[in-house]
Amino acid sequence: MNKPHDTIKISVIGGSKVDTGIYKLAYEVGKEIAKSNAILICGGLTGTMEAACKGAKEEGGLTIGILPSDNENDANDYIDIKIPTGLGFARNALVILSSHAVIAIDGSYGTLSEIGYALTYEKPIVALKTWQVRPYNSENSPDIYRAKDPAEAVRVAVEKAVEYKNIVS
Amino acid sequence: MNKPHDTIKISVIGGSKVDTGIYKLAYEVGKEIAKSNAILICGGLTGTMEAACKGAKEEGGLTIGILPSDNENDANDYIDIKIPTGLGFARNALVILSSHAVIAIDGSYGTLSEIGYALTYEKPIVALKTWQVRPYNSENSPDIYRAKDPAEAVRVAVEKAVEYKNIVS
Amino acid sequence: MNKPHDTIKISVIGGSKVDTGIYKLAYEVGKEIAKSNAILICGGLTGTMEAACKGAKEEGGLTIGILPSDNENDANDYIDIKIPTGLGFARNALVILSSHAVIAIDGSYGTLSEIGYALTYEKPIVALKTWQVRPYNSENSPDIYRAKDPAEAVRVAVEKAVEYKNIVS
Amino acid sequence: MNKPHDTIKISVIGGSKVDTGIYKLAYEVGKEIAKSNAILICGGLTGTMEAACKGAKEEGGLTIGILPSDNENDANDYIDIKIPTGLGFARNALVILSSHAVIAIDGSYGTLSEIGYALTYEKPIVALKTWQVRPYNSENSPDIYRAKDPAEAVRVAVEKAVEYKNIVS
Repeated sequence: MNKPHDTIKISVIGGSKVDTGIYKLAYEVGKEIAKSNAILICGGLTGTMEAACKGAKEEGGLTIGILPSDNENDANDYIDIKIPTGLGFARNALVILSSHAVIAIDGSYGTLSEIGYALTYEKPIVALKTWQVRPYNSENSPDIYRAKDPAEAVRVAVEKAVEYKNIVS
Repeated sequence: MNKPHDTIKISVIGGSKVDTGIYKLAYEVGKEIAKSNAILICGGLTGTMEAACKGAKEEGGLTIGILPSDNENDANDYIDIKIPTGLGFARNALVILSSHAVIAIDGSYGTLSEIGYALTYEKPIVALKTWQVRPYNSENSPDIYRAKDPAEAVRVAVEKAVEYKNIVS
Repeated sequence: MNKPHDTIKISVIGGSKVDTGIYKLAYEVGKEIAKSNAILICGGLTGTMEAACKGAKEEGGLTIGILPSDNENDANDYIDIKIPTGLGFARNALVILSSHAVIAIDGSYGTLSEIGYALTYEKPIVALKTWQVRPYNSENSPDIYRAKDPAEAVRVAVEKAVEYKNIVS
Repeated sequence: MNKPHDTIKISVIGGSKVDTGIYKLAYEVGKEIAKSNAILICGGLTGTMEAACKGAKEEGGLTIGILPSDNENDANDYIDIKIPTGLGFARNALVILSSHAVIAIDGSYGTLSEIGYALTYEKPIVALKTWQVRPYNSENSPDIYRAKDPAEAVRVAVEKAVEYKNIVS
């Protein structure tokens, strides 16, 4: 396992129910995150979250699950550090706040709220097959990097995470 | 002031910095909400939130502000009941949870997170000049009613709020 | 119903399961709060919370319930304004933050956490048959007013609430 | 560093401003937690939290700080994994929920709220020179183990944490 101290943390956000293609994509993202020596943060549940953690663990990475319920047994099998919050979906804010950059993969309404939070908290966002969002007023047009594959997504996310971490430190 | 017991609650969400046109729109929405005898819920701050509350108070409505800070003095001047949460933007979840329907007016990233929450918690959403959102997978296409003006927005929101309240009761 | 704008808000904290004597005490506290034209805040559930709200409503008061669940139907029958938070017991912090003074009646472990929050947020506390708490280090000895009956509890709570409100404004 | 997967997590709670004696005590507790191969959870700030993390890191332990602010730079220098929550003191609930047992050392009002949460969530509590709490109704008398020194505190906390983890699994 990687030494966590002062390392980069990347959130992976996406749906808890996904098809095989998206599961595979998230799994590859998880592998790449671990190979980059970054910590993987997620919401701790099934689907995209499970796939990414599975990938990360196969490469010896460290995974953190910030759970909506107050029961750590709700975590998927690939979470090292389980943070049950009891906050329901308000925990989405924490998944974003805990990381230096966010990778959004597909996803449903919860993922949309997390994209909103990532923009609110000025965390870099990298997108893989996820929501398109367009404000009424173009001054609020969000800066979301659209990646072509897991390797590019993680490479860009790590670069932006390092930048983010240096700016806020 | 209207009797609050068992009345409908409508959230108005939108940006804290808005131009005159949007301010006017939110003000009209607030007036219509009060005329419908509904309670107005919002995030308690400036811009859209202030405008809607100002409109509601001019028609004798009741307004509730669910604030991000722990200081109730951060509320705008038209909030009757100030709920300082100290939760930061995690309070966005509460603005949505407290209402039976949501009216989204323009808005920035916080508003986007709230649209995500409204969809997550299956609250009816009525939109006035706000975000367009499109999922990668069309199964998650959100049901958002696009209204043409404040009167229609509030009429539809109240109808849907009554329906929502009857279903969950 | 009283005009809520700029009025005093008093939290009543206590257990959700109480005996007849404590229920009666909380009911009297609720009546006195309403007669003082203050708004009653509570956690929205049964026991002490229900009793206090019942008393307040019989005197035409306004009651607010800040609920742990995301379902407003969990509120007791005497809550005017239901704020479902979905935060679980983390909502205890909000019950305290929303008020200008706190009346603690009997109560179990949740009440103890709320007494801790009231002290943390420097809200005045008035006690009726509730927890005794003693720090290891006497510098942290808490300032809790022990009242002899509901009338005195509410009179002192309102006085301290007015003071608190003037200081923070 | 220890392998975190499936290991025990112990929360250390206490004040952010402490004298030398309490700092020393917390430091010893941190060392013992790491030597027991448990993960140390805390609120991430100064005083007791810093002392315990310093001790844990000197023995090669893993430390997690669940911070009240939304800025991970508020963490003390001995936190491996920084979870900025932006929830203010509502984060106290999460410090308790994330662990399998709690060690309370001295502490002020925040610590009192955390003792309330530990009892609410039925987490085992071990006390070292901390609050004495006595309910009005003896049915609610809390089960708090009073330890004589850091070694005993951690030994008992780990035993109870293992039991707790087995029961809820």
